[in-house]
Amino acid sequence: MFIGKVVGSLWATRKDEKLNGLKFLLIEKQRNEHEADPALVVAVDHVGAGIGESVLITTGSSGRLSFDGKSIPVDMVIVGIIDTVDYPKE
Amino acid sequence: MFIGKVVGSLWATRKDEKLNGLKFLLIEKQRNEHEADPALVVAVDHVGAGIGESVLITTGSSGRLSFDGKSIPVDMVIVGIIDTVDYPKE
Amino acid sequence: MFIGKVVGSLWATRKDEKLNGLKFLLIEKQRNEHEADPALVVAVDHVGAGIGESVLITTGSSGRLSFDGKSIPVDMVIVGIIDTVDYPKE
Amino acid sequence: MFIGKVVGSLWATRKDEKLNGLKFLLIEKQRNEHEADPALVVAVDHVGAGIGESVLITTGSSGRLSFDGKSIPVDMVIVGIIDTVDYPKE
Amino acid sequence: MFIGKVVGSLWATRKDEKLNGLKFLLIEKQRNEHEADPALVVAVDHVGAGIGESVLITTGSSGRLSFDGKSIPVDMVIVGIIDTVDYPKE
Repeated sequence: MFIGKVVGSLWATRKDEKLNGLKFLLIEKQRNEHEADPALVVAVDHVGAGIGESVLITTGSSGRLSFDGKSIPVDMVIVGIIDTVDYPKE
Repeated sequence: MFIGKVVGSLWATRKDEKLNGLKFLLIEKQRNEHEADPALVVAVDHVGAGIGESVLITTGSSGRLSFDGKSIPVDMVIVGIIDTVDYPKE
Repeated sequence: MFIGKVVGSLWATRKDEKLNGLKFLLIEKQRNEHEADPALVVAVDHVGAGIGESVLITTGSSGRLSFDGKSIPVDMVIVGIIDTVDYPKE
Repeated sequence: MFIGKVVGSLWATRKDEKLNGLKFLLIEKQRNEHEADPALVVAVDHVGAGIGESVLITTGSSGRLSFDGKSIPVDMVIVGIIDTVDYPKE
Repeated sequence: MFIGKVVGSLWATRKDEKLNGLKFLLIEKQRNEHEADPALVVAVDHVGAGIGESVLITTGSSGRLSFDGKSIPVDMVIVGIIDTVDYPKE
């Protein structure tokens, strides 16, 4: 799992119908308190996250479990909205 | 999941027969609005994508779910054609 | 699996209810005896680990097995607290 | 999935008996038309590939599906021999 | 799968009880004939490997199959001891 920041969103009209109704958000991985990964990824929102929020993301078959056993082809899911991170003191 | 751009295709006559009839496309990962990953990957098309289009890609066992439980040995699947991406303002 | 060091923690009030009661810790991957990866990750604790401890981490669907078949959307789990590592002599 | 080139092979007499009879090949990942990844990987051949050939490789639990549900501990499988790749024009 | 070299070991007294009796070894990934990855990983031994030996490693849910369907939370398993690698001639 990793900490991400919601930085954008995307739309796809033609898609696998099992993805209908899902919200796809553009995510910036937070490498640590000071640095983000320049390579963005796409996650499906499952907790009502919005632009600018810090979120917890689960990947792979584990992420899909958020959808209670439905067979949805997603491999990155926002499973929580982060209130506070206690980063190591420097 | 990540955003990719279809940049080519490939043919394989001798292959696992479970792959017969599938279309294999060469994909450039979009790291962000301005940069692509130089390492190309190969994805199976499930939505009728064509060269030059921006697509949404799901990996691993999650990608396979697009084929409704068929046991196909693919680990990267195009699950949507992207209309618009709202990248972060700079 | 990899060796990590617990360096912080995080709180998320709004989250997938299947994550209720779990403890999320911030992990620094130990690349070797002298170096850590600057990109932190988040793991769920299953063995009572605390800040500063060296831990063994399992990823993906394998990590979930620590929770005995419960369908919890986590992909990184602390499965042991490390007493000693015999690093290669230099 | 990715494009690889078969560059060598390996032998292991003492191994998990479920791997008996399989052919292990050393693979160079082709990053694009001009570049290969210096880190080699090992894949199991399922289509009769030979040294120097360009192959299509599937990873993880998806790769195992090539062996029709047998529980074989392999995570990288050659699923096709590539005839032609249409790389992007430059 | 990848080629690794056993370079050390580790002990963890407090751990998931499903890991009892397993041997955890510190592994250096061999990128090619001349180079190793500086980031070490941890694998469970299933074939009696010892320090200094060259081994074949399977990752993820595939690696677990070495343990015949037991639900053990490990994601990297030594499945063979390598006798010879035919690296590409230079």
